[in-house]
Amino acid sequence: MVEAIQVDTMERVVSLCKRRGIILQSSEIYGGLASCWDYGPYGVLLKNNVKRAWWRTVVQAREDMVGLDAAILMRPEVWHASGHIETFHDPLVDCKSCKQRFRADQLISANCPVCGGELTEPRNFNLMFKTFMGPVEDSAALVYLRPETAQGIFVNFRNVMTATRRKPPFGIAQIGKAFRNEITPGNFTFRTREFEQMEIEYFCPPEEADAIWERWVEERFRWYRDLGIRSEQLRKRQQSATELAHYARATVDIEYRFPFGWSELEGIANRTDYDLAQHSRHSGQDLSYFDEETKQHYLPYVVEPSAGADRATLAFLVDAFAEQSDDKGEIRTVLQLHHQLAPIKVAILPLSKKPELTEPARRIAEALRAWWTVEFDVTGSIGKRYRRQDEIGTPYCLTLDFASLDDHAVTIRDRDSMCQERVPVVDVIPYLQEKLATKITNLQSDTIFSK
Amino acid sequence: MVEAIQVDTMERVVSLCKRRGIILQSSEIYGGLASCWDYGPYGVLLKNNVKRAWWRTVVQAREDMVGLDAAILMRPEVWHASGHIETFHDPLVDCKSCKQRFRADQLISANCPVCGGELTEPRNFNLMFKTFMGPVEDSAALVYLRPETAQGIFVNFRNVMTATRRKPPFGIAQIGKAFRNEITPGNFTFRTREFEQMEIEYFCPPEEADAIWERWVEERFRWYRDLGIRSEQLRKRQQSATELAHYARATVDIEYRFPFGWSELEGIANRTDYDLAQHSRHSGQDLSYFDEETKQHYLPYVVEPSAGADRATLAFLVDAFAEQSDDKGEIRTVLQLHHQLAPIKVAILPLSKKPELTEPARRIAEALRAWWTVEFDVTGSIGKRYRRQDEIGTPYCLTLDFASLDDHAVTIRDRDSMCQERVPVVDVIPYLQEKLATKITNLQSDTIFSK
Repeated sequence: MVEAIQVDTMERVVSLCKRRGIILQSSEIYGGLASCWDYGPYGVLLKNNVKRAWWRTVVQAREDMVGLDAAILMRPEVWHASGHIETFHDPLVDCKSCKQRFRADQLISANCPVCGGELTEPRNFNLMFKTFMGPVEDSAALVYLRPETAQGIFVNFRNVMTATRRKPPFGIAQIGKAFRNEITPGNFTFRTREFEQMEIEYFCPPEEADAIWERWVEERFRWYRDLGIRSEQLRKRQQSATELAHYARATVDIEYRFPFGWSELEGIANRTDYDLAQHSRHSGQDLSYFDEETKQHYLPYVVEPSAGADRATLAFLVDAFAEQSDDKGEIRTVLQLHHQLAPIKVAILPLSKKPELTEPARRIAEALRAWWTVEFDVTGSIGKRYRRQDEIGTPYCLTLDFASLDDHAVTIRDRDSMCQERVPVVDVIPYLQEKLATKITNLQSDTIFSK
Repeated sequence: MVEAIQVDTMERVVSLCKRRGIILQSSEIYGGLASCWDYGPYGVLLKNNVKRAWWRTVVQAREDMVGLDAAILMRPEVWHASGHIETFHDPLVDCKSCKQRFRADQLISANCPVCGGELTEPRNFNLMFKTFMGPVEDSAALVYLRPETAQGIFVNFRNVMTATRRKPPFGIAQIGKAFRNEITPGNFTFRTREFEQMEIEYFCPPEEADAIWERWVEERFRWYRDLGIRSEQLRKRQQSATELAHYARATVDIEYRFPFGWSELEGIANRTDYDLAQHSRHSGQDLSYFDEETKQHYLPYVVEPSAGADRATLAFLVDAFAEQSDDKGEIRTVLQLHHQLAPIKVAILPLSKKPELTEPARRIAEALRAWWTVEFDVTGSIGKRYRRQDEIGTPYCLTLDFASLDDHAVTIRDRDSMCQERVPVVDVIPYLQEKLATKITNLQSDTIFSK
């Protein structure tokens, strides 16, 4: 019973996404492309807000972090060194009767789950997408679409460290697309063949790695909480020795309870010096750090908090999704997204289509657009318009009525409490700044210069 | 002579980019990958600022625009409909002696430019990267890396219009990676096989298309000017009838005078109803708009301002690059980037490494990081540190000296004028808000409610 409700929740989120243009099926007019999704007008704003919130927290707000944006196409040697060419594969079996193909490690019985036929022996299938660069289609020009952004960071480690005059501990952060030719993608945008990662490689003296790893686990967990994910829907799970990747000494997964079960949003791994050692060996370049204080060369250890931008976006969406009684006792669908993530911050809703109201409303919209994403909506009853904004998670609706022409004030409605406040138009910007937490506090002499 | 200086400028920009980690060669420790580049710590900030400035101007600030983020992988039918499978190719010739390969349309003589050998007849080479989706490598699973983001907009046109209840004229904007297997990439990040586009498809009633096209040409030209590109380095060039793509009725290119010559940053094309007609035909779906006022169905015309994010970034870099006498009469390298584009907005430079200065300096840095990108630098003479910040275009340097401990004030230096001002620490944030144009002005009752 609980499970049925849960599945239903997922269906309703997917249906809301399609109806309101949050997430749409790729190439839908041609029948769609399996497991590929497009972010529509509200979806791209939401996902950009997720990426920006991550970047602000892990790069902008920290002294010890820098960013990077490496190309998707890299030298094939990178994937030899990383081990992806040798080991990044799934075991595949074919049904000898119906010819369908399955992942051997996901089968429950020894026979085909579709027709009961006999299965072939498992064969390894590499998950990297291949393509050819340059006009000649031969092995010399074979390149891969990166299956992870991490390697772009490792191969740039030395150049970035030198150019920015950093020394360990410091980290490099990157957001970008990666591609995996998954046999069984699914669960909406949770597992797709094209996806976007938000990865950090944090380089540190080996003896500090364990403590730093623990700190990153806490900090990354807090990030999801701070952006509003309910604590009972979020957990840390340490991988067992048998689950660990060959390069990892310890990994904690941050999992969200999706309607389809607890699933990984982010893994925080202690990768030791595996990656830098591999790239040193394969490239013949010295990637060690020379510590001028101790006069020692060492290969930094790497702590890797690796998150999925699409998964995080989906978790924020699912977690924010609610169906509640509205102020008239009717059921309203609302996305209770954190203000920082909401695609539209303010909707401007003149109560009538008459120019007396729409003209000043448009002027307000235009002024607010300099700072926030704003939607202007004049169609339908005010109740209907509130519900439209609730569905996409707009925290504030600003209404102009005919009284506004006399008192020069507007009504601002809060998405969550549904309370309305009358606010003089001159106070609208400070009001929203306060509510949307974008008000800057001045520096205080005594705090800055305290001993 | 002029040309020699120009080439030299390009080399110096490339060298600065490498030295300061703005743009680095992809997979450099493995010898690099032809024409692939990685954006380093300052480069990713710069390029993100370019993309954000574009998005704010063409999406956030406008009532008539929405955003989109479509997947890179799409159904192959999309590229049949768009004409890319049939016509998106370059003519290639091989030298029968030295086996080198050239673009036939770029050869000056009928013989090999390298060895003088005889050339083959030209053959067509399609510029799309191919790959295979799913475990079976056969033609059924053939997919392409998109060679442009535009088609992702066309196939989503109807869904976006419906979901957002829009009607023409309105536009859809998208930023994303595209891939072209260019035979002759080059000029640093100007022509690369992997690149990022910033595209708008503006859908309008056919009779309004010409006027709208003209407006977009002006608006896009102004965008580059507003972000600081010198007017004498920027021009509009209307494509001649022979240059026009088969789908275009008129195209204006916005060109920048790079050290390697006038080159296209952006093309603004009137594509008529070509794209929607093609996709209607190939998908069998009705993509026309029904105008409830005139009771007519029509296929909207499309005006397409299509810009390159990497090219724009390179133009801003090159245009901002200057070598000048500094305040001590020595030559300084400075990136005179628009404040909105500068990777780092404020550098915090305590005059001594003593904790009395570094501790309050760090507190200031931490407070400012909530709003701006900040760099903290305590190494080397103050002159050297100013030059480091000038090289990456940091508009303001904030210095703490021992007098700061008494007067609770800091010195703020302006990158361009090199003037210094003493500013009380309590006024630092309003000072920077004013200078960095991030100060919000309140709404005025009489302006909003003027008749």
